[in-house]
Parts: sequence; structure tokens; C-alpha cells
Amino acid sequence: MAVWIWFPHDFSIDLRARVEMRRREHGMVCPPIWRVDSPGRAVTFRREYELAAPGRACLRAQGEMYVCLDGAAIPEPADEIVLPAGKHVLTVSVMHLSGLPALFVSGDIESDERFSVCENNVDFRPCGFSAAFDAPEKRPELYSLPTLRRDPEGVTAEGLLDFGRESFGFLCLTAASPGPYTVYYGESKEEALAGKQGETWDTGVFARAGEEVRLPSHALRYARVDGPADVRAAYLLEEHNGLPWRAAFHSGDARLNAIYEVSARTMALCTREFFLDGIKRDRWVWAGDALQSVLLNHYSYFDRATTRRTLAALRGREPFDQHINTILDYTFYWMIAVWEDYFYTGDASFLSGMYDKMVSAMDYTLRFVSADGFVVGQKRDWVFVDWADMPKEGELCVEQVLLWKALCVLSDSAAVLGRAGDAAAYRRRADALRERILAVFWSEEVGTLLHRRAPDGTVCGHTRYAPMFALLYGLLPEDKARRAMENSLLSDSAPAITTPYMRFYEMDALFRAGRAREVLQGVRAYWGGMLDLGATSIWEQFDPSETGAAHYAMYGRPFGRSLCHCWGAGPVYLCGRHILGVAPTAPGYASYEVRPNPGGLQSASGTVPTPEGEIRVTLQDGCVQVQSTCRGAGTLYWQGKRAEIPPYAGGDPVLACL
Amino acid sequence: MAVWIWFPHDFSIDLRARVEMRRREHGMVCPPIWRVDSPGRAVTFRREYELAAPGRACLRAQGEMYVCLDGAAIPEPADEIVLPAGKHVLTVSVMHLSGLPALFVSGDIESDERFSVCENNVDFRPCGFSAAFDAPEKRPELYSLPTLRRDPEGVTAEGLLDFGRESFGFLCLTAASPGPYTVYYGESKEEALAGKQGETWDTGVFARAGEEVRLPSHALRYARVDGPADVRAAYLLEEHNGLPWRAAFHSGDARLNAIYEVSARTMALCTREFFLDGIKRDRWVWAGDALQSVLLNHYSYFDRATTRRTLAALRGREPFDQHINTILDYTFYWMIAVWEDYFYTGDASFLSGMYDKMVSAMDYTLRFVSADGFVVGQKRDWVFVDWADMPKEGELCVEQVLLWKALCVLSDSAAVLGRAGDAAAYRRRADALRERILAVFWSEEVGTLLHRRAPDGTVCGHTRYAPMFALLYGLLPEDKARRAMENSLLSDSAPAITTPYMRFYEMDALFRAGRAREVLQGVRAYWGGMLDLGATSIWEQFDPSETGAAHYAMYGRPFGRSLCHCWGAGPVYLCGRHILGVAPTAPGYASYEVRPNPGGLQSASGTVPTPEGEIRVTLQDGCVQVQSTCRGAGTLYWQGKRAEIPPYAGGDPVLACL
Repeated sequence: MAVWIWFPHDFSIDLRARVEMRRREHGMVCPPIWRVDSPGRAVTFRREYELAAPGRACLRAQGEMYVCLDGAAIPEPADEIVLPAGKHVLTVSVMHLSGLPALFVSGDIESDERFSVCENNVDFRPCGFSAAFDAPEKRPELYSLPTLRRDPEGVTAEGLLDFGRESFGFLCLTAASPGPYTVYYGESKEEALAGKQGETWDTGVFARAGEEVRLPSHALRYARVDGPADVRAAYLLEEHNGLPWRAAFHSGDARLNAIYEVSARTMALCTREFFLDGIKRDRWVWAGDALQSVLLNHYSYFDRATTRRTLAALRGREPFDQHINTILDYTFYWMIAVWEDYFYTGDASFLSGMYDKMVSAMDYTLRFVSADGFVVGQKRDWVFVDWADMPKEGELCVEQVLLWKALCVLSDSAAVLGRAGDAAAYRRRADALRERILAVFWSEEVGTLLHRRAPDGTVCGHTRYAPMFALLYGLLPEDKARRAMENSLLSDSAPAITTPYMRFYEMDALFRAGRAREVLQGVRAYWGGMLDLGATSIWEQFDPSETGAAHYAMYGRPFGRSLCHCWGAGPVYLCGRHILGVAPTAPGYASYEVRPNPGGLQSASGTVPTPEGEIRVTLQDGCVQVQSTCRGAGTLYWQGKRAEIPPYAGGDPVLACL
Repeated sequence: MAVWIWFPHDFSIDLRARVEMRRREHGMVCPPIWRVDSPGRAVTFRREYELAAPGRACLRAQGEMYVCLDGAAIPEPADEIVLPAGKHVLTVSVMHLSGLPALFVSGDIESDERFSVCENNVDFRPCGFSAAFDAPEKRPELYSLPTLRRDPEGVTAEGLLDFGRESFGFLCLTAASPGPYTVYYGESKEEALAGKQGETWDTGVFARAGEEVRLPSHALRYARVDGPADVRAAYLLEEHNGLPWRAAFHSGDARLNAIYEVSARTMALCTREFFLDGIKRDRWVWAGDALQSVLLNHYSYFDRATTRRTLAALRGREPFDQHINTILDYTFYWMIAVWEDYFYTGDASFLSGMYDKMVSAMDYTLRFVSADGFVVGQKRDWVFVDWADMPKEGELCVEQVLLWKALCVLSDSAAVLGRAGDAAAYRRRADALRERILAVFWSEEVGTLLHRRAPDGTVCGHTRYAPMFALLYGLLPEDKARRAMENSLLSDSAPAITTPYMRFYEMDALFRAGRAREVLQGVRAYWGGMLDLGATSIWEQFDPSETGAAHYAMYGRPFGRSLCHCWGAGPVYLCGRHILGVAPTAPGYASYEVRPNPGGLQSASGTVPTPEGEIRVTLQDGCVQVQSTCRGAGTLYWQGKRAEIPPYAGGDPVLACL
């Protein structure tokens, strides 16, 4: 089957720039703060073929083509070229100044993975492609998400269009008479009513009565239309990702079910061309948010295309001369996400394409380490960790833990790709780093990993971040792990985490330590608290002590906060990964485990997707039942007992009960 | 004065892709064989200002703008923004997906070199700009060369339009009646008559009688129009570089004068947005050709803008992961050309902008050296040297000589830029390399530098290239220099050089060794030989033993040869640099020498441009007179005598005679 082909990852890199350029706020386009890469402008596609008899091929390109057979130009290739019989080499160079050079070949040879591509006449490599672009008219540059018409549910007392819940799309207006108009969007009523104190609006002029306009895409629940539009004719072209939600969760706790549902909607709204952080602000691709989306994706869409577009776009092109998103921590999250994609899908093709880019990113990172091998935020780095007050100068323990995990990921990746030398070297480096982390940051007195070594050499401070990631990724030996859990995560001695972003990892670590009950209690309070305030999607941040419109302020802007932020959708992951307890134990679910962790729920059931087939878990009356169509072999663990779940081989789902 | 500003070098990088995409042959666009870079797609311009009273600024951009004052967005900036009084920081981010992001600010603050720019929120650096774009409507993306109408001089017996001499422009046709047409272009009659055996043609369809079309730009002297065009209405919009030719040369030898004139026309035709190799084939920017054009430019236009556009475009963006133009030697020529620009202009601003890029190119180069520190062509490198039969495996001496010169250039550049540590390190490396070159390649037996060390360790072969560059760049100690001149350049034991490309350097070296008479004899025969065949511009290659259309063939294509190739315009340089003998001895002609070398010419006179002012030299009746408006101090050397030429300080030119 012929598909459009291109230089690997360039479709994602180009699309990212187009998507990020759609971020509009304060009446302007808001460009990203990092380097925005372009696709290569000229590439050469190459295919060796052998035909028993002369054939024909039809060529289509995004850009201008130069066509050669065995190195000699085919003058003026028309709609079809003649392919002589025998063994030959077809090369097609494509140059495109304003977008992605791409090629489609049909006929007796077809553009597919048998074409290789290069941008420098030398380094030919496998083409990039997507099964979605499988016809000459399905040009990659025409790619857009599907839309559905959505009418407002009503008009509020204040005269706002109300679409009933958080949404994303193109508002469509019809002019009642000619004249200028302004549309103010709001995730909240207050924002839509705030005029230019809000974040987003559009202006325009109707030329004549009856004119229909489709405005730029925005996040909104409410819209205020100032100007001569026929409000009764207004509707939204809601833009969807078009992906099937392959998971489910339902429990005896209605509040938790509602939280799952709103979290799932949040995930759905933020899963677009890429995993975005938020749909109002900022519509950019961030590695910290992306890692969480990748984890959530494995318990919802299981869509590897969105994951890979996101991760390829995040990494961009060489040179790696600044951390991803300008943030030190984000380079590490990006590497971990590449590994998570491999581990859940079992498909090493993307990992293989990213490996050299992981290596160059790690080379860059290791250029800036201290004598102990610790990374230190440079003047050019944003050391983020979390929106929380904490000192960040010097060597932060949490950054070392993430570096250690990234080195482990590189070692494991090298091993998968058959690079034993690299695997051993990265493992040695990881082991040495782990030793130094324990030697420098472990405090016997406090019984945990301390926050940082300040520039003056003092090791001090206590935050939850380093112990939490160390627990999650298994850096600590058993007794230290136990003590860190007690002293950092289960005590009040370190400040509480207030963003859903970092609570995600804290809850993950707590679940793994058997603290389901505490986690669910926190989820009901924190996520439930937003729902109590009428949230129809999960917010970027939530502080129960705030009141009224204070909930909408952030970054010093009255409506700066994003009310649909994917890092708040963590319950999607927690329900599948921990309450139902489903996880692969070998890449691609070749083997897996089901370890339910209901945390006091009377009943819970749901579905977790795998690369092929689903795993359905039902907890009821103290018993657990698994129905599986997963091709791998599973093990069910429940209340000290275990049962094997055979690989599915067709027919009815296989069953296991305890 | 306000000018359009951009990320440094990106205007040149973007323009190069646009220019190279205009190469058309065999009815197709022919993309370059190297990586084609894009400008950064999103950049941030920044300016700290202080105003005593509130002011206003008008902003224009290529792309979409996001405007902040002191870090906070200015919502919906209209045509003008208000600038509060006091000290503030204005930042304007510009994002452009299909071209160069650029900004123009006028009013109480103006876009100029006081703005800095970055593409990653961190590394702010001086903006790129050109004085040519000094008004809001003079947008950089509208840049094009000026054109002049040129009518054909007649129609040949074969029915070809004849423009009288080699030209470059857009053929304009008027339809006599509707219907399809094809236009075949020829630098020679034979090519225009050869149909699709030729290199370039255009096709189209006239919709109606009287329709006027402007075809794409091509090199041509002749055109054959097939189809219903009104041939009497056909003309050419000849495209010019618009630069003043600041040099002159005239001698008592009419043949030499004709050669100078045709060489100058060749240089003029190939000096366009960039220094191109040839105007028919291949309209790409090549560093080997560019170095010669840079040298010629200092004896003709003295236009630093074309030089710097060319050299910035050649280097492109990071990463440096392949030699310039894919050719090992070309990286070295590029570095030498950057230095020549500095040395003749005395302006280190461009050198300063290129220095880091020279360092990264050298870092790459040095990753692939042998135990002796010799560069060896890798699988990904094209080891070019010259179009001539010679073995190129192993360590070629000529490549080591060029590497040595490049290391010297880096050391000198570092010194100019105040980087003493770098200067010393590169000098040490250059000295060590020179020692190894002499130890390995110098043959006492043959009395010259041998061609290469083969992979089996044998040092063998004798070509002119290594001795020639070693002489030119002063690598050899005096006695060895004398012997290499005799044994390699003045003997027949090494094969003769047959391209004007390498003859350029050979003649330069011979002139420096006092062999003016032999050089001029060669020029009269070789360049004169082309003129005898009716050449109106200098060819890419010339073999006097060929006959008829064989002169036009190359690369296995009957009309593959370029008949207007700048590497043949060397006489422009030789006349000014050697016959008139003018050269700077300190950067920017702060001091200079005039050492005429007439090679038996009875009389010769001419002008050589300097950064400010010209130097006019007249040789007549055994005497030499210099008239100078150069701001530096010169020394005239003639027949064992010398005279000082005072710096010009206004008024009549200063004089010196011997």
C-alpha cells in the first residue's frame, strides 16, 4: 500500500510549529520560547527496484521534484514515468521552501518503507510515513483533526453563549447586519465577561448581513459576542482527536466515577495533534506534561501515533544545544517517555529512531556536571521541578534522581537495540551516580534524601520530590525506601505538593507502597473539590482555600490559569494502573500482571487496553475476575494468592478468578 | 536609521535556499545535494530603552508578532504602541512558518543594531540587518535583483533569437495566437538547437493572442521559441547585480585587454544574490568557487555584502555534520575566504559572527584525522581537489596543506578577536601539522611534496596541487620552496592542470615567484583560445584539442558544460593583484604595497579598489606612477627601488612615482 513518505520525524516537527503558532492570547499569536525547528527543505528519496517487465509509476510531491533513474535525470517527468525492466535505482529529490517535502509514488513501485531518504546525499535512512496518508490526495500538509457541530446549550443571564462544558473548536457566526464584532472566550463565565482582561478574543468585521465566519480555534465553555451577529445561529465546530477511548472504569463510588469521567474528558481535550498541556493556555508541547500524557495514554487511547508525534516533535532536530522546553528536568522526562512508549507497545522502531537523539541529548547534559557527576542548572537552564517555593541553586537531589533514571533508560534502550557497549557504559555511569546520590544526599538523621547541596557545600532542605522519584524509580535500597516513604511522603515534615502535576507521581509512589486508601481519600478531596465548584475539566492548579474568581488567576493574570490541563487527568492512569492493577512486566505486554489495589472500594471494574486486545478486571464482593484478549501471558495477584492468565489465542476472552 | 532586523545570517540562509531552488534543468527544479537549512521560525527581538517623555513606536513584521513591555503582553498592538517614559524593555517575538521572521520598528525607538535577538529565550546576540532594507515597505522577503530590458540583436539563420552575448534573465514572450509553446535556451547555438538534449527549457500554453508571459530566469545567449509567439516582440529582462565595478585594467596588449573584459563580464554574471559558480549550471553556491570570487571581488566590486551573504549561506546553521558542499577541501576554502574578507576589509564584524562556526567546523574536521593528524576522506566526504584523474584514497598531501592553512586562519582569527588561548592552540596544532607534512610528504629525491600516502603506507605520486598551495600559503622553507617551484610547477614531471579553477592558484603562485611572463603566455593561449572560439564569457573547462560541440559536453551530457563559470574569471584578480601589484599588507589596507609585475607588457594601467578610495597604477616607458585615494599608507616597489605612498587625507589623490 502506497503512503506519503518524508524525512523521518519531519512531519511531526513541522506540524508542531503549525500547531504552536495557533496559540493566540491577548489578540496576538504567541510563539514558543524555545527554538522552533523546520523540516529539511530538500531531501532525496531512493528506491532500488527490480521488475521482470517494464512498468509505470505515478509521482506526486509536496514541493518540486527532480527525478533520476540510475543517476541520470528523467527529463520532464509527466504524470507517469516509465520504469525499465531489470534492476534499477530510482531517486526523487524533493525541495519545498514553506513546508514538508514529501513524496507519493503509485504504480508498479510504491512509496512505502522500502524507500530510504537523506538530506545530504550520504546518510540514507528509513523514511517517515503514516498509514493515515495513503492516497495522493491525502497530502500530509492538509492534515487536520475532524470536527463536529455543537450548538450552545443556552444563553446565560449575562448573555453569554454556554456550550455546557469545556470545549475546543471554531466558533461560527452569522452576521445579522454589517459591522465590527469582538468575541470574548471564557473557560469560566467570569473570564468571558472580563473583556480584554481575559486571555483570548477575536475581532473582525462583517461585510454584509448573512455573512458566515469561522473564527480561529479556542478553548471555551462560554463566549460573549459583541457586535451584529445573529446569536441564535451561532455554533461551535468542535474539534476532536477522532481516537477511540479503549479503556473504562466504574466503581461503587459515584464521586470517583465522576472524577474519572472529567479526567477522561480533560485527557481527550488535551490529546490533539500532540499531547498538549492545556487547550486555552498554552497550546504548546511540553515534555513534563507529555510524559504524564504518555502514561495516561496507555490506560486510555493506547494510540502510539500521538505519542510518537509528540516525542519526535519535542526533541526536534540537531543540534541539541538547550534542554527540551529550556527546562533541565524536561530532557529527562522526555527520555523516560520514549522508554515508556517502547515498554508498553513492545515496538522498538520509534526507540530506534530516537536513540541517537537521546545520546546527543545526554552528551549535552553531561557536559555540565559537577565533580560528583551531578547536573547543575546553568544560566541557560530553567530548573522547574514544580510550581512551588523552593531554593533551586546548586545541585538539586531530584535532578540527580531524574538523571539517574534517564541513564538507566539509555542503558536499557541500548540493550534493546543490541548496543551492548553503550548499555554497559550507561549502566556504569548510572550505578556510580546512584552511589554518589546516596553518599551526598541521604541523611541518616532525617531518614530521607535531602533537597539539595547549596553552592556553599551545605546539604540541606527537605522536599518531597527527590524521595518520591527515588521511590517510584527504585533508586533506594529497601530499608532506605521504607524510611523515605515514612519520613517524606507520609509525614508533614516536607511541604505538601499542591499541583496535580507532582501529585501524580506522589500518588503513583504511594499506590506502589500499598497506600491506596490514602491516595483515594486525597483524590476525592482534591479532584472532587474542583467538581464541587462546577469544573467540567481538570484545572492546572487548585487551592481549596481560594474563593470565587481567585481560582482563575495565575502568572499574575486574572484569568491566566488553565481550566483544562492534562496534568490533572492523572486519575485515568491511577484507576487502570493501580485500582485495577494492570501493567506489563515485559515489553508490549508479552507478559503482564494484574494486582488490584481497590483502596477500600466495595466494587470496581474496568478495561485496560494492550497493543492487541484488552484486559477487563472486575472486583466484586472480595473476589476478582479477569477477562483478557491480550496476546501475552498474565499473572493475577490477589490477597496473597496468584493465578495464571493464559495468552489469548482467539475465541472467547480467557478468564482468571481469585 | 531604522532597518529591518533578523536573526544573524538567517537572511542569507533563507535566500540561498530560494536562489538554489531556481536551478532548473531538464524541465525540473534541481535541489542541492547538501542539507538545505531554514531560518529559525520564531525569534525574539529585545531592546532596552530609556525615554525622557512617553513616546510611540510603529511595528511591522514578516510573520506574526507578540509584543511585551517589561515582560507583560501589550494586548492587540495596533499600528502604533505607546512607549512609557523611563527605562523599559521592549520584546517582540516574531514567528514565521514559510520564511524569515523579521521586524521593523520606527518612531521614538527604531530597529537597528541596538536590538538583540535570540531563538531560545537565552542567547541574545546582535541582530542581522542590511542597510538596503531601510523602510517598512522594503521587506527582506521582497528582495530581488534589478532588471533591464534587453532586445535580441537579431535572429540567426536557424531562427534562434540571439542576444549577442552570454546573458541571464527572464525571457518575455507575447502570444501571436493561443496554443502551447516550448522555449529552448542555449549558451551556444548548438545547445539551443538540441531540443531536450540541451540543459534548459520552459513549456507553457498561451491562453489567448496578445498574452504576455515572463518565463523563469535562465542563462542564455540564444533561444529557440517553438509555438505561437510573436518573435518580434520577444525580449529579455536581464537581471543585474546592480553593483558598481570599481576596478579597471588596460594594457598595450589587446588580447589581454579582451581577456580582462570577458573575465569581468563572467564575474559580473556570476555575482548575483551570491557568488555563483555558473549561471546555467548549476546556480548553487560552492565554497571552492566562492573563495575565488571573494578574491576577485577585492579587485572588482569590493562589495562586502555579497561576500558575507555567500559565506554565511555556505556555512548555514549548526550542526556541522558534513563538509561544506559535501566536499572535504571546501570547508578549508570557506575558512580561508572568511579570513580574506577580514584581511581586505579590515572589518572584523563578520569574522566575529563566523568564529564559533569556524570552530565547530574545525572540531568536526579534526574528529576524522589519522595518527599523524592528517585528514582522510571519509565515506561521507567528496574529496574533490580538481576535475582530473588522480588517486584520492588515503592521506592526500594537498588536503593537509589546506588544513594547515585553515588552522593558521583560525589562529589568526582568534588573535584578532582577542582569544589568545585559542590562537596559541591552533598555532601549535598548525606547526605540528606542518612538521608532519614535511616529514611524510617531502621527497628529497623528487625535490617536492608528493601527492599522497596510500592506505598501504606508500608515499607516492606527483601532482601540482600540494606544492602549489604550499608555495602560495608559505608552508615551505625557502630552499624547499625553490625546489618545489622548479620540480613541480616549472617542469613537466607532474600532469598539467587543465581547469581554470586550479590554474588560478597555479598562476597566483607563479606570479609570486616572479614568473609573470610564463603566466601571461599561458593566459593568452588558454583564455585567448576560448575567445578565438567566440566565447563571450569564460567556460568551466577548456581543452584546446577538442573541436566543435565537443567543447560543450561535460558530465556525460552533450551540453553539460557551463559556458559562464566564475572560476574562469581569474584574470580579473591577476591583473590587479599581480600585474598592477596592489595588495594590503595589513587588514583593511591600513598599509599596502604596490609591486607591479608586468611580465613583459609595454604598458599597463588600472585601478584597484580599497575599503575607502582607489589606487590607480600606471606603467609606461619603464616607469610606474601611483595615484591613491586610499586612507592607508602604501609602499611602491619597482626595479629594486621603493617609494612611500602617503595616506590620503582628502583633496587631490596622493602620488608616487618610480
